[in-house]
Amino acid sequence: MPSNIPRQARRGAAIGMKRAFILSTGDELVRGRTQDRNAAEIARALSAEGLTIVGISVVGDDLDDLVAVLRRAAQEADVVVMSGGLGPTEDDCTRAAAARAAGVRVRRDPALEEWLRARWAERSLRMPESNVRQADLPEGAEAVPNAYGTAPGFQVTVDGCEVFALPGPPREMRGVLADEVLPRIRELIGATDHVVRTRTLETFGARESDLGERIADLMGRDTWPRVGTTAMRGTIRVVLHSEGAVDEVEAGLDRVEADVRQRLGGLIFGRDGATLAQLVGERLIATRTSIALAESCTGGLVAGALTSVPGVSAVFPGSFVTYSNAQKVALLGVPAELIERAGAVSEEVACAMAERVRAHFGTDIGLGVTGIAGPDGGSAANPVGTVHLALASVRGVTHRRVVLPGDRALVREIAVKCALDFVRRALLRVAT
Amino acid sequence: MPSNIPRQARRGAAIGMKRAFILSTGDELVRGRTQDRNAAEIARALSAEGLTIVGISVVGDDLDDLVAVLRRAAQEADVVVMSGGLGPTEDDCTRAAAARAAGVRVRRDPALEEWLRARWAERSLRMPESNVRQADLPEGAEAVPNAYGTAPGFQVTVDGCEVFALPGPPREMRGVLADEVLPRIRELIGATDHVVRTRTLETFGARESDLGERIADLMGRDTWPRVGTTAMRGTIRVVLHSEGAVDEVEAGLDRVEADVRQRLGGLIFGRDGATLAQLVGERLIATRTSIALAESCTGGLVAGALTSVPGVSAVFPGSFVTYSNAQKVALLGVPAELIERAGAVSEEVACAMAERVRAHFGTDIGLGVTGIAGPDGGSAANPVGTVHLALASVRGVTHRRVVLPGDRALVREIAVKCALDFVRRALLRVAT
Repeated sequence: MPSNIPRQARRGAAIGMKRAFILSTGDELVRGRTQDRNAAEIARALSAEGLTIVGISVVGDDLDDLVAVLRRAAQEADVVVMSGGLGPTEDDCTRAAAARAAGVRVRRDPALEEWLRARWAERSLRMPESNVRQADLPEGAEAVPNAYGTAPGFQVTVDGCEVFALPGPPREMRGVLADEVLPRIRELIGATDHVVRTRTLETFGARESDLGERIADLMGRDTWPRVGTTAMRGTIRVVLHSEGAVDEVEAGLDRVEADVRQRLGGLIFGRDGATLAQLVGERLIATRTSIALAESCTGGLVAGALTSVPGVSAVFPGSFVTYSNAQKVALLGVPAELIERAGAVSEEVACAMAERVRAHFGTDIGLGVTGIAGPDGGSAANPVGTVHLALASVRGVTHRRVVLPGDRALVREIAVKCALDFVRRALLRVAT
Repeated sequence: MPSNIPRQARRGAAIGMKRAFILSTGDELVRGRTQDRNAAEIARALSAEGLTIVGISVVGDDLDDLVAVLRRAAQEADVVVMSGGLGPTEDDCTRAAAARAAGVRVRRDPALEEWLRARWAERSLRMPESNVRQADLPEGAEAVPNAYGTAPGFQVTVDGCEVFALPGPPREMRGVLADEVLPRIRELIGATDHVVRTRTLETFGARESDLGERIADLMGRDTWPRVGTTAMRGTIRVVLHSEGAVDEVEAGLDRVEADVRQRLGGLIFGRDGATLAQLVGERLIATRTSIALAESCTGGLVAGALTSVPGVSAVFPGSFVTYSNAQKVALLGVPAELIERAGAVSEEVACAMAERVRAHFGTDIGLGVTGIAGPDGGSAANPVGTVHLALASVRGVTHRRVVLPGDRALVREIAVKCALDFVRRALLRVAT
């Protein structure tokens, strides 16, 4: 956030932007036995509505903890959206916690009790009497219907802050959020010209630090749009984020995106979550460029990535996994003496694999990948992580050697991306 | 939670259990663009050490927010473990926030700077000067080495609470947590008789509801150990959880695990996060059973899964991805008229693929997979999700047809697990 703007403005308040706090509850969540996905989903939904998320908290099924966090959240935010703790059992204490935070009693809501019994009757089930406590509400709270289950939510005001309590099961939370809560929040914040927009530019082929240096001056904390980078297992994402009046925001993002594209050029392969596999697969199909693969260290994962793209069968007849040296000879006809002389993990063998697999399948492109994924097999000359890639086409064979970081899984995963990126760059040359 | 145990004891406070708070930082996390998994993983690890997790918070890359949450966490807990914000860029403010919360300055640590430059040198890379800020530490903090990346963590005391800052990338966080932080925490908390233990039994081949029925009586809310199930993209995990005095806990888990194993038998393929690929790969190696694959709809992913296991090259010479019908004929010699007559997605073709790939590679087992991953290509007879698997061995050929739920990605993912499970069951027969 820009440091030259006073905190209030930075958090959006001064420009009439509402602040939201998200709260997930459950012992299984706070102990990490279940991964909480509700908070992230709610955060995305509220951000899209133009709210600023000031924080996310996860607390166990403990009344005191819940009351404390709820009170604090109500002070920090205009809206609190919480999920979980609405079940019928002992440790579901959201109703009691909200009541205590609001300084009111819990009372049974007759209409809600009726609704509850009706829900069970609909499914011709007898409601366990213990479940009747799901008809309890903090005094002054309004029930929020749940069309997806038997646990109703509610809305209550805690010192001026609107608190929405949603059921914990993701499917129910999702439904109630969309049907009931987001519409109420839109009313609450009223018509606002304030929008929040994020664009991401997906890059491959440079280190995060090198890439960061190229756009360092755009990444200052006091410039809008905010520009940041995130590295994800080999791919580096440039995130452009801005908020404010819609026209200024879009104009600002266009300007910075153009600037970043100019500086990073061919490193950028897509936008907003595009994957290399998707891009390469689609471009192969679009340009009717056929491809065959000979994989060693990636063991079929490059083929697996390509075939994640529907319709790729039009350009991908098939491929070899030549995991043993014997099969590099038997299937591809790589000369045994070459493997003997240069080593299975070498430029020579990678190139031979690419040329021969291309010839075997009669495709436009042949790709060969051979390397050392580890944990064993490394040497001073060829440390673990060494991967040789070769691409054969009508233009001849090109080769790349990379030394990748990480464990076996990461080396293989990044090797797949290197292979796909190698094809992407070859296709770009075709295109130009 | 058992309702017969007083809440305090359950929270652990009354029995001198240390309290931990977990903090994840990053704009992409608080906005929900990236799902935070670090907090849950750290929570599991700390719970296993017998700590009580009092809360989890996610905050954006905002210095003020971070300082505020950190100060509060330090008051509520004896230990705070945070992840993220240790990168070299402008928006990485964990170092500054920890310093401010501790009321000290940030200073450059010469030894750390040396280590940092050495890390880059090792990989014969030039360190961008901007990265030197990763050698900054709050005064009085101790650097926590990171053997998995170039972002060192640190440990600092914030009013009596031990704060550990870990790198954000999950792989680095995981490594530093296990190697450096947990040992320090064990020293910190000393010997305690109260332990928290979770065991998981990994199963494949039954629906969650069917499986649940078989162990329903073990899943009551007031029985120890707690027993639950979680479905994860085809595999179903049975979770056994217990806490208390170490002997009782282990005895209870042993008893229930034996009971569950008796009831679920061959459905269980492993424990505590074991994967089918791992298990099958290792068993193939141990029994010296060689295997070759002919994949169509899975497009190389079965080979990719097998080769995730180090040393599998001893039993896996290689495989074919025969994505087009033409290649099923050309590479495998599946009769064109058979494909014509029975269809590419059929028992006949799957069996032919298995037999012929086994013959071609001269392996003990040949596996053939052909199916319709979608979104297109489905028919009334063969809906999207239909997958034929065939396994050829000295005993002849066995076949399975499954119709899998979900989108293209899920169908392919579960198809891979079906293929691996098919091999697992064949090997079990070998074993017995």
